[in-house]
Amino acid sequence: MTEFTFALHATDGDARTGAIHTPRGLIRTPAFMPVGTQATVKTMYPGQVRELGADIVLGNTYHLMLRPTAERVARLGGLHEFMRWPHPILTDSGGFQVMSLAQLRKLDEKGVTFRSHLDGSKHHLTPERSIEIQQLLGSDIVMQLDECVGLPSERAEIERAMRLSLRWAERSKQAFGTRPGHALFGIVQGGDQPDLRLESAKGLTELGFEGYAVGGLAVGEPQAVMLDMLDVTCPALPTSRPRYLMGVGTPDDILQSVKRGIDMFDCVMPTRAGRHGLAFTRRGKINLKNARHADDHRPLHEESACPASRDYSRAYLHHLVRTGEALGAMLLTWNNLAYYQELMAGIRASISEGRFEDFMAETREGWAQGDIARLD
Amino acid sequence: MTEFTFALHATDGDARTGAIHTPRGLIRTPAFMPVGTQATVKTMYPGQVRELGADIVLGNTYHLMLRPTAERVARLGGLHEFMRWPHPILTDSGGFQVMSLAQLRKLDEKGVTFRSHLDGSKHHLTPERSIEIQQLLGSDIVMQLDECVGLPSERAEIERAMRLSLRWAERSKQAFGTRPGHALFGIVQGGDQPDLRLESAKGLTELGFEGYAVGGLAVGEPQAVMLDMLDVTCPALPTSRPRYLMGVGTPDDILQSVKRGIDMFDCVMPTRAGRHGLAFTRRGKINLKNARHADDHRPLHEESACPASRDYSRAYLHHLVRTGEALGAMLLTWNNLAYYQELMAGIRASISEGRFEDFMAETREGWAQGDIARLD
Repeated sequence: MTEFTFALHATDGDARTGAIHTPRGLIRTPAFMPVGTQATVKTMYPGQVRELGADIVLGNTYHLMLRPTAERVARLGGLHEFMRWPHPILTDSGGFQVMSLAQLRKLDEKGVTFRSHLDGSKHHLTPERSIEIQQLLGSDIVMQLDECVGLPSERAEIERAMRLSLRWAERSKQAFGTRPGHALFGIVQGGDQPDLRLESAKGLTELGFEGYAVGGLAVGEPQAVMLDMLDVTCPALPTSRPRYLMGVGTPDDILQSVKRGIDMFDCVMPTRAGRHGLAFTRRGKINLKNARHADDHRPLHEESACPASRDYSRAYLHHLVRTGEALGAMLLTWNNLAYYQELMAGIRASISEGRFEDFMAETREGWAQGDIARLD
Repeated sequence: MTEFTFALHATDGDARTGAIHTPRGLIRTPAFMPVGTQATVKTMYPGQVRELGADIVLGNTYHLMLRPTAERVARLGGLHEFMRWPHPILTDSGGFQVMSLAQLRKLDEKGVTFRSHLDGSKHHLTPERSIEIQQLLGSDIVMQLDECVGLPSERAEIERAMRLSLRWAERSKQAFGTRPGHALFGIVQGGDQPDLRLESAKGLTELGFEGYAVGGLAVGEPQAVMLDMLDVTCPALPTSRPRYLMGVGTPDDILQSVKRGIDMFDCVMPTRAGRHGLAFTRRGKINLKNARHADDHRPLHEESACPASRDYSRAYLHHLVRTGEALGAMLLTWNNLAYYQELMAGIRASISEGRFEDFMAETREGWAQGDIARLD
């Protein structure tokens, strides 16, 4: 298989399940992509990430272009080889993190100029340079450079950024050219304005991309606004191409977005929460710092296939989190990524079997039950 | 096997190899015990520690008595169950870390009073309480409470602490009583004074212990002084009991001490160095922070059985260390413990085969060679 293709296997309402085929391997959708910001999914060995069922991870162009630099990664054989992840990798364009992390940002038609948050060094990022960096990294799925505005924002500002992102989409497509087996995704912008979302989706579809991302959501707005924007946007995108909701989200965000036709997700939530003592479980989010766990010999989930969830007591996890031991973050991140991948597997199976709504209801019911009763 | 026994299998000069049998499993000697201060060998899953060949780990009584407390560990089924390490565990007495970490220490004949470095709470540690704590933890090898003085110190001070430690040894033995399958070790003190070391060894041997530790070394003195003290002490200890050199040391310290008849070691060096960007290898210690590794695609040791040593490039390790990513500490700690256990396996095999001196010379030659030439 030398081509990048997407095959829909089943739908259930607007929810879809299928697979992206790439020369690096298959990506089962709906897919959750663990975030490997600096060429590592924090506190995880790459083999563990794979074993949990991840078919693809995300790398952050902004971080990697600064350190170790894209050129160095290329000399070392590319990002897959560098981080020992031979499976597909999606890289973002760098634009989002330039706007959130870099200093002295200046954005114009050509691109964005900024100073590194690490050493103050000056850098330029244009649609063309972003494509070049992502190609140097060896990314399988390349994202266009866009401008993402936070919410709430003025409509005029949202509109300006959406139009600029569309023009950058065209330049990105030009720069990307033809790379068999690799894909360029365009990014829908338009904030919380339905007509701007539609205009963006239409413009990108006319240009034609291998996949379409929905950007500029989960940036401060209520979940209902995000879902409204998906209700507007998804039907305007071609059914034959994967749809990726960027930076989302909570398990419930994922269920609600799959329901509206989204195929791919990435989020730092499971990994970041794991470093802050929080565990995602079938019974909702559990704070292991809480003293109620100090004497609790029970594991997070005794029937889990994941050793982190099954083999260690809450009391031990509590101890590790309280003492700041690395193993605490390692185990909770492992548990959280296991939970997210288990959720995705459940979503895929339930869509295939035409019972996605039931799966969603059961899953939400589990969360609503809350954690098991404390030991007395 | 319900007894704690020690069997010598072979000697080569003064170097010995054998095995300690315990109900929890076999400890092949010479043995290196990874340090699991707070009920975790830092940045390692317990299964990994085992797979590297560790037969026993060390737990620190001072840390564990403060958090999560010995009583809590006991309620949770003991330290083995708590930290998911079903193999033997040795615990120290807590005395050494009281003197180095606690606040407002007051030592008298009865024991030591101190305030926790965590919350200022007041605690008493006596020989009897130390035994009780270690029994609550479920330790397989229990250490007597002693007083360890740094070097250099006045002879009178060394003498006073050694005599106190002897009296505490007797009280410890009394408190320990008879616990089939578990062992109490006495600790030789006496600083850098040969006659005091002899007096201590003789006094302990007369009391009779399952094993004998040499304490109060690697506390600031040159290696030559430490080795002189081993030359004096080891011949004064019964050959039929294991000898444990506490808190030691570098790979060369270990070779030199095995040569003098030591059977057991513990040290934070491989784990601590791993968190500071340092790798122990056949070619000496390597600082991965160094820019010379930034473009080096070669692993630390391509023929190693340890994935950390074999599968990741120096360039990647350098990147992880420079960016402060947890995976850097995880991989280097893994490599370092692999190196230490590989060294111990080589020591044991070479003693069995009567070629320990050759093994020692070859090993030291490898270190002296230094790291492989840098890539140009």
